[in-house]
Amino acid sequence: MSRLHVPKGFRFSGVSAGIKSKANAKDVSLIIADQPCTAAGCFTTNQIVAAPVVYSRSLVPSTSVRGVVINSGNANACTGVRGMEDAKKMANLALAAVGGEDDESMLVMSTGIIGRFLPMEKIGNGIAMATSSLAQGEDAFLAATDGIMTTDAFRKVESRVMPLRQGEVAMAGMAKGAGMIGPRMATMLAIVVTDAILSPEAARQMLQRAANRSFNRISVEGHMSTNDSLVLLASNRVAVADQEISSLEAALEHLCIDLAKKIPDDGEGATHLIEIRVRGAATEDDADQIARTIALSNLVKTAITGGDPNWGRIVSAAGYAGRPIDPSRTRLLLNGFRLFDHGEPQPFDAKAVSQSIRSSKETTIDLEVGSGDGEATHWTSDLNAEYVHFNSEYTT
Amino acid sequence: MSRLHVPKGFRFSGVSAGIKSKANAKDVSLIIADQPCTAAGCFTTNQIVAAPVVYSRSLVPSTSVRGVVINSGNANACTGVRGMEDAKKMANLALAAVGGEDDESMLVMSTGIIGRFLPMEKIGNGIAMATSSLAQGEDAFLAATDGIMTTDAFRKVESRVMPLRQGEVAMAGMAKGAGMIGPRMATMLAIVVTDAILSPEAARQMLQRAANRSFNRISVEGHMSTNDSLVLLASNRVAVADQEISSLEAALEHLCIDLAKKIPDDGEGATHLIEIRVRGAATEDDADQIARTIALSNLVKTAITGGDPNWGRIVSAAGYAGRPIDPSRTRLLLNGFRLFDHGEPQPFDAKAVSQSIRSSKETTIDLEVGSGDGEATHWTSDLNAEYVHFNSEYTT
Repeated sequence: MSRLHVPKGFRFSGVSAGIKSKANAKDVSLIIADQPCTAAGCFTTNQIVAAPVVYSRSLVPSTSVRGVVINSGNANACTGVRGMEDAKKMANLALAAVGGEDDESMLVMSTGIIGRFLPMEKIGNGIAMATSSLAQGEDAFLAATDGIMTTDAFRKVESRVMPLRQGEVAMAGMAKGAGMIGPRMATMLAIVVTDAILSPEAARQMLQRAANRSFNRISVEGHMSTNDSLVLLASNRVAVADQEISSLEAALEHLCIDLAKKIPDDGEGATHLIEIRVRGAATEDDADQIARTIALSNLVKTAITGGDPNWGRIVSAAGYAGRPIDPSRTRLLLNGFRLFDHGEPQPFDAKAVSQSIRSSKETTIDLEVGSGDGEATHWTSDLNAEYVHFNSEYTT
Repeated sequence: MSRLHVPKGFRFSGVSAGIKSKANAKDVSLIIADQPCTAAGCFTTNQIVAAPVVYSRSLVPSTSVRGVVINSGNANACTGVRGMEDAKKMANLALAAVGGEDDESMLVMSTGIIGRFLPMEKIGNGIAMATSSLAQGEDAFLAATDGIMTTDAFRKVESRVMPLRQGEVAMAGMAKGAGMIGPRMATMLAIVVTDAILSPEAARQMLQRAANRSFNRISVEGHMSTNDSLVLLASNRVAVADQEISSLEAALEHLCIDLAKKIPDDGEGATHLIEIRVRGAATEDDADQIARTIALSNLVKTAITGGDPNWGRIVSAAGYAGRPIDPSRTRLLLNGFRLFDHGEPQPFDAKAVSQSIRSSKETTIDLEVGSGDGEATHWTSDLNAEYVHFNSEYTT
């Protein structure tokens, strides 16, 4: 992996506080701005929502956030009044530990098992340790990344650097994936830091648009978590001219897409990352919904698992997405092979298509559904028996 | 199994015409009314819709239907213009074979592999054979049932008899399930016959309401088929008084529920039939959507597979169903054990709950989501590695 471009104005740490059962696994992370920074966030829309989400989303957008404290190993979800108190206490412990003022705030994220109260003594010790090991740069950034992981098989980080008139802007993001083990509810967490100067409203808009085309367009099995959180922190060091804002937004979108794709790429038991590109829909939202419906079909997923060019499953999933499609203009390409066009099956070399699926970790589905301008891309993982084994293990 | 109550006025047959690859497997069925009968239907809402569905749904409701001809082994779906011609030809062959008049019509259903043209010679031979073996009564009814099956592990039939003032009304239904093998798209087909006197409009309304609470509330993996068809044929022998109509409708609803439940009970690889009862929603439609969302969660399914009382997966699925719930009033019972109440985890004997899941083929989930009157029940199957193996086998 090439070196990460870690923006100025932040320190990071990740330590092991004994919350996870595995010895020495990092489970408390801090991402701390040297000064109060601009913060924006996107959160799960689940009505059953974890306490740290309720707490953090009430604080953003803002210009007075000092950072984020994150624990893995316990989601602090479905924990009622006590859970809310614990989330607030966790934030306040971290804010105090890093010398934050009363008018500053600390965001909080949790991921891991649902329905258990946070082990507050371990959380407190972890925050103290994490505070004393805060550092700048890539190694510290990666330590923080390790601290937010649960069942991830690999670290998920991305960075970008953009030359602007007033200097170079760096952007770095970390994410944890939506794998499950036993009773642990998956939680997608992601934090992006940048040294650009951003207003809270600019940060909010930019992040929401980027999320809509990245984290909101991935799935593993489509079970929406109680804890999903994505935040953007800006340390406000490098000025962005008005005419540069759209480039910065594009960079953030691409960074988020690359980060987000790593999540289904690391889906439990996954042997394929499936990219589903829908074009020709009436609107982008229609295209998104059609791509999502295909992505959530167990029959589509298992066909890809088996290297089976089973186009009937794909076009029929598009047909029940609840958005208009024109069957007579529907065209399906699988890894570039045309399997269905104008409502009719096309002759194709099934062995060659199967071989192309089997020989690559990535599968692409291109589906045209009409003559509209709406297009969207969704990423998902295939479905293997290993996923079922993982998630049906009795562990409560 | 107790004897079926097969209504008067119909003859049935099921024969082997060599459409399925398995030798001697029945694959052409006829259900024929002695006289033109009342017919109503409910069909898939998939925009990618098979030719026989397009053909049959244009003919109902009606008073001049002579019956249904069904083949298994080929879905006649995604077959374009030729598929439409084949469906019509198949219907006309059957209508002529049973001596139907020009002003009468024949419904047609197909189930099996997608994207291949119907083998019309075999279809024609099958119709001829089926016509010559038409008979009344249970054995013939069961032969017809066998002819519509694809990957079903067992026959799905139900019947009822209701004493009315003018005589006894019988009602008998057959269905085939939504299992998949290799490239075969699942198709739910069901036919219910009765000797009650029904107007087309009464039949249509009664069937739609029954379907909404039965076939529309089951799922295996939630992939909507291109061929789903449910029809009701009434031979108009026994008069139904106005005040008896609601009892007849209730009987039809219960028959349809019992028939529909057999489909997830026979889901591929399924080891549990999961009954999800949602109460306290604002409307029945909200309750339906919440129950459906829980049913479609792979995480809920795999938890039941593993005997894991993982209530966090269930309540979080309810939370993303897109319908209002009141977390502070949410209460979850699993097989009668209270696991979550008023937004807080409840102490419970995890071993006892697990044992109750493992020791029974049926699992019940009772979820209260607020104080409204809306309630609905959904039935689904659990998710096993066997399902994944079946559906990822390379078979094209």
